[in-house]
Amino acid sequence: MSATQSFKGIGASPGVAVGHAYVLDNRRVRTPKVKLQENEIEPEALRFKTAVELSSSQLDDLKEKLKRDSEEGSQDHGLILEAHKLMLQDPMFIVEVNRLISEEAINAEWAVRRVARRIKHQFDNMEDEYFRERRADVDFVADRVVRNLLGHAMDEEVELPKDSVVVAHDVSPADAAMLVRTGKVAAFVTDLGGQTSHTAIVARAREVPAVVGANRASDSIRSGDLVAVDGNQGLVLVNPTDSQLALFRETMRRHQASEATALQTAELRAVSLDGHQIHLNGNIEFPEEIPSLLAHGAEGIGLYRTEFMFLNRTEAPTEEEHYKVYREVLESMGGKPVTIRTLDLGGDKVPGKKPEREANPALGLRAIRYCLHHRELFRVQLRAMLRASVHGNIRIMFPLISGLSELREARSELEHCKSELGRAGVPVGKRFPVGIMVETPSAAWIADRLAQEADFFSIGTNDLIQYSLAIDRQNRDVAYLYRPLHLAVLRSLQNIVRAAKNAGIPVAMCGEMAGDPTYTLVLLALGFEELSMTAGQLAAVKRIVRQTSRNEAQSLLERAMEFSTAEEIERFVRHEMEKRFGGAE
Amino acid sequence: MSATQSFKGIGASPGVAVGHAYVLDNRRVRTPKVKLQENEIEPEALRFKTAVELSSSQLDDLKEKLKRDSEEGSQDHGLILEAHKLMLQDPMFIVEVNRLISEEAINAEWAVRRVARRIKHQFDNMEDEYFRERRADVDFVADRVVRNLLGHAMDEEVELPKDSVVVAHDVSPADAAMLVRTGKVAAFVTDLGGQTSHTAIVARAREVPAVVGANRASDSIRSGDLVAVDGNQGLVLVNPTDSQLALFRETMRRHQASEATALQTAELRAVSLDGHQIHLNGNIEFPEEIPSLLAHGAEGIGLYRTEFMFLNRTEAPTEEEHYKVYREVLESMGGKPVTIRTLDLGGDKVPGKKPEREANPALGLRAIRYCLHHRELFRVQLRAMLRASVHGNIRIMFPLISGLSELREARSELEHCKSELGRAGVPVGKRFPVGIMVETPSAAWIADRLAQEADFFSIGTNDLIQYSLAIDRQNRDVAYLYRPLHLAVLRSLQNIVRAAKNAGIPVAMCGEMAGDPTYTLVLLALGFEELSMTAGQLAAVKRIVRQTSRNEAQSLLERAMEFSTAEEIERFVRHEMEKRFGGAE
Repeated sequence: MSATQSFKGIGASPGVAVGHAYVLDNRRVRTPKVKLQENEIEPEALRFKTAVELSSSQLDDLKEKLKRDSEEGSQDHGLILEAHKLMLQDPMFIVEVNRLISEEAINAEWAVRRVARRIKHQFDNMEDEYFRERRADVDFVADRVVRNLLGHAMDEEVELPKDSVVVAHDVSPADAAMLVRTGKVAAFVTDLGGQTSHTAIVARAREVPAVVGANRASDSIRSGDLVAVDGNQGLVLVNPTDSQLALFRETMRRHQASEATALQTAELRAVSLDGHQIHLNGNIEFPEEIPSLLAHGAEGIGLYRTEFMFLNRTEAPTEEEHYKVYREVLESMGGKPVTIRTLDLGGDKVPGKKPEREANPALGLRAIRYCLHHRELFRVQLRAMLRASVHGNIRIMFPLISGLSELREARSELEHCKSELGRAGVPVGKRFPVGIMVETPSAAWIADRLAQEADFFSIGTNDLIQYSLAIDRQNRDVAYLYRPLHLAVLRSLQNIVRAAKNAGIPVAMCGEMAGDPTYTLVLLALGFEELSMTAGQLAAVKRIVRQTSRNEAQSLLERAMEFSTAEEIERFVRHEMEKRFGGAE
Repeated sequence: MSATQSFKGIGASPGVAVGHAYVLDNRRVRTPKVKLQENEIEPEALRFKTAVELSSSQLDDLKEKLKRDSEEGSQDHGLILEAHKLMLQDPMFIVEVNRLISEEAINAEWAVRRVARRIKHQFDNMEDEYFRERRADVDFVADRVVRNLLGHAMDEEVELPKDSVVVAHDVSPADAAMLVRTGKVAAFVTDLGGQTSHTAIVARAREVPAVVGANRASDSIRSGDLVAVDGNQGLVLVNPTDSQLALFRETMRRHQASEATALQTAELRAVSLDGHQIHLNGNIEFPEEIPSLLAHGAEGIGLYRTEFMFLNRTEAPTEEEHYKVYREVLESMGGKPVTIRTLDLGGDKVPGKKPEREANPALGLRAIRYCLHHRELFRVQLRAMLRASVHGNIRIMFPLISGLSELREARSELEHCKSELGRAGVPVGKRFPVGIMVETPSAAWIADRLAQEADFFSIGTNDLIQYSLAIDRQNRDVAYLYRPLHLAVLRSLQNIVRAAKNAGIPVAMCGEMAGDPTYTLVLLALGFEELSMTAGQLAAVKRIVRQTSRNEAQSLLERAMEFSTAEEIERFVRHEMEKRFGGAE
């Protein structure tokens, strides 16, 4: 038996699995570099054109294939492949490659790599992991074109043995989708990637455990090795000892049992012993995530992030593109509420002319501020939402509202678009709720006034905590200050909920705090009517709500708030949760 | 008569003056570049050594001269010249120049310029104007050394005609000090510089009007031109028309009258008609600013920023250096309270190894967080403060406190240092107040708990407003959201003041809001007992306090807080101030 090894990566899709390794050799293909003669330039441009067309039709085929196989219908991974196709049509890509071929007289493979490098460079300085991950997409597309130029086979169907743990340096979304579709993937392990890499997204959507960012795992693991993967902890064990394996199988058994309970309890409502109901919704980024959400019993979508639409492109999405996706999401949810958030990005990440580098982007021109500075871009999105509103139960939500003026301006833009569409005879849904994210300290302080003019609140705890404590939690040096149970945070939440109740509007939470069962009793006590989280978190939160009374939760919160430091409060709450539920889970 | 021209720059030192231009030709001297022969290297190193020694003794002479002439005794500009001297001793400077001379065989002038460029480069990426300004200091020192190498005369006494408006591309602190000392400078106008350039600081300290950053003014103005300078508005008129001049003289007359009143009322207390007293203190950065503060009637120092000590150096200041300056400030204030703030910088600006670039420095490792991560650096400063505490009425203040844990840790460091000094037999002042800046939203929310363990509060409105509204006001795109009268800010202030009163501790404000007379009634209404500002702002604030009753202010605030948007509140308050006082001034 081979030596036991272990790797620690990022737990990117929850679940536990044991299987034999299937190592994909998909390292980047070598790029030949040739200087062209004058008379070779025209044929080279044609070669490039053909390779792009081939790449594009391959992506169409893939989409078609995935769609046919998908039980849930149309959404499977389509958006991601669509993004890749869009890159193939991107003038910045096409024109630049042709320019290099003709002006610098270099071969198409070389030109493609150089342009890809330049495009990726745009993502280099982005602080957000999400955007850095998008660099991988550029490579996948460039790879496809280069392989097609070289006549290498693409999208070959591999014969996976059952329960394979797919190990790779990186997996393209196309490969990931194709592999998952065989039904034989027990888990993914990749060297590269993060929480928001496409492999991670596909894996989560299909509920396949995945560990990404596992360093050099693909160098050390050989096909056939026995591999145990814990997608919750980000742990990979290669050729585990018998006792390790036994332990692992026990973890797996427990995870499966809890997953089974989750699916069994999917239909149950989250009602406390004394009858207080909390609606449990899901957060999504892609339509692909909807089937899993529904299977886990989400009652609606509490946060649909629309940022993906804007990434990896040189021009902002058209109204039609927005509309198609929103309509798809609304229809898939079949009348359940869908809360769509308007663009929550800064100018550095939106297609078009890049603004000057901001000294503190988190305190800069982003989200609603950016939209109010770029009215046409905002209107395109609003019009698409309005048009989509006839297809389901929509709610529109504005991010980063810091005062009443911004809310008024955003609402008036929406009204403007509505009457515009009305005049053009385009059908628009009847009255639907228009609310705000409460995520700046100022919004927390004046929640009573905001509640007079917003139809609902949804608290974005991630930003609220960061601004309240004046920290950027991506910054390792100050991440220790990020404490959801800081007394200032609890008091802010109290103030926001109280304001909403007094005004008679619903108040939800869609930040990470909402999905962590450690905080469920605290949120029940505070009086939240709606919590929104990822699919995998729904069952655990529901279990806690169903096993306690709000009364009890309130007395726990009262005692917690007598402490003064975040550390004391956290220790107390964790201890109490442990006593009641044997740990936060 | 020559053509009329006008320049708009930065009003860096208030006041209005009219005089004839005296244009200083102090453009950078040309640097000869010579490649040395092997046998020229040693003599060149000696030449450099001699020039450095000469430069150093020139700075000593200057300091001595300024000291002798200064009516106020010891502090005049000493610190700035001292900083220049320190640079001459800086190994990074000396060793590097010698290395270039010997290894690259280039002449000393060239080597000095190259090393200066490299040192300046460290300041390049700093967002804060203050630090960018420090680049000028590097040039002044390099210039002095190069001029001495070339045998040019330095620090020549110029024969200024009376009431000269000194016009220059830039003025070194040494020149500025020498010129001011003649008593013949009516105003300064420079092409370069900002609010925190040394010329600005010297001008403010000596109450000479100054406009800096006036673009290419020194190219267009000729010696003898009639120049009118408005240091409040940042306006420069060259050869004004008769009517312009008449208008200007009227502004000047009014400014002088108000300055005269200010000095006359310096001794008066800021007591409202119904007997509510507010202590008016000053904010300083350099001991040089104390005489002007005292002349304007400051009752103490509400904020002494210690950051200057850490700049332009390769090693953090020693305990002795800190001690000397703190002692000087305490003694100059003769028993009046001096509130010293501990280091309020991030790692990028502190001497030593530069940290990784932070994505959002304003939300990063700075101020008290930085100090708690770098205990020895913190202790050096605390020990110096403790030792200085026997020389006056000290208060120690910690910046950027976000929760009780940080306050406890900082206090325990202070206790630790105290007992350390006690054991070593070093005398330390008896109990003195230890307080905090309240400038994070979280501190505002939990002010009641913080008030249990802090001896006083001082509200830093600049940061409090920025974090509350999630904006960086240096960012032009979002600066419009910076509103001291946002309802969220007013409520935060209310909460902080209430908490302090309930706990029986003093509450002050030292942010910019404190010195702007537009807000004085609001602050009186809120119940502040202490406001701290620059010398020039004291009289206007005092006038308003003395002409109103707190009762009236409270009813104004009540009505203001019925509005919901910052714009509405601001419009209302400005209108009411206008009615009562004929405009905010």
